[in-house]
Amino acid sequence: MKLLIVILSDADTENVIHKLIEADFRFTRLSSSGGFLRRGNTTLLMGTPAERVEQAIKTIRGAAGSPADPGHRVAMIFVLDVQRFEQL
Amino acid sequence: MKLLIVILSDADTENVIHKLIEADFRFTRLSSSGGFLRRGNTTLLMGTPAERVEQAIKTIRGAAGSPADPGHRVAMIFVLDVQRFEQL
Amino acid sequence: MKLLIVILSDADTENVIHKLIEADFRFTRLSSSGGFLRRGNTTLLMGTPAERVEQAIKTIRGAAGSPADPGHRVAMIFVLDVQRFEQL
Repeated sequence: MKLLIVILSDADTENVIHKLIEADFRFTRLSSSGGFLRRGNTTLLMGTPAERVEQAIKTIRGAAGSPADPGHRVAMIFVLDVQRFEQL
Repeated sequence: MKLLIVILSDADTENVIHKLIEADFRFTRLSSSGGFLRRGNTTLLMGTPAERVEQAIKTIRGAAGSPADPGHRVAMIFVLDVQRFEQL
Repeated sequence: MKLLIVILSDADTENVIHKLIEADFRFTRLSSSGGFLRRGNTTLLMGTPAERVEQAIKTIRGAAGSPADPGHRVAMIFVLDVQRFEQL
């Protein structure tokens, strides 16, 4: 199991979330803001089986792509190893 | 040191937090929401010594257990290894 | 690449953020609250190259230091290993 921490600009968030749900990924959404300009952004926590990490990244990449507005895009994905996972 | 990321439904949050405090666990609480229906939930960040992880999970499991309402429970616990921990 | 999860008391947050920006660190800011007294605090997620972790910790330590008010300080830093990092 991996934990993906995904930071999205507000401009990309709705589309990314829509595509992730369509692809049957589950996540939790945190409110966040940028550090400097405090532009709104969203952080997703996604518990993801190791074999679906590649698909998750491709899904996010595809949905976040909006080359017309390069200045406002700050999507970042951190993939962390999960030592233990419990679902209650 | 481990970092537990705990995602709790709103229905379970107050009881889990109460039991964790009783057992002398410390945590930080983040506001979060589910992805799809955006039902409210809460994310806890818990720095936990390795030897207390088992107790933390048992405490959360005991406090989150409400079999009468299975449809609304989405508690998840991710245990991550902490490479370095600094308390200032 | 490392991920620093930094939990700051509200009293320290603005100064720490200012110094981090000055030192050219990037981060995302999450709203959080303490567990027990629910005193406001802030959680920063900082993707940081391994070779800059030491500098990041020193910067936070320097900016969070206010010995006049020891009772209200709860800064904690968790350094996690990032298995994979994608910037979109």
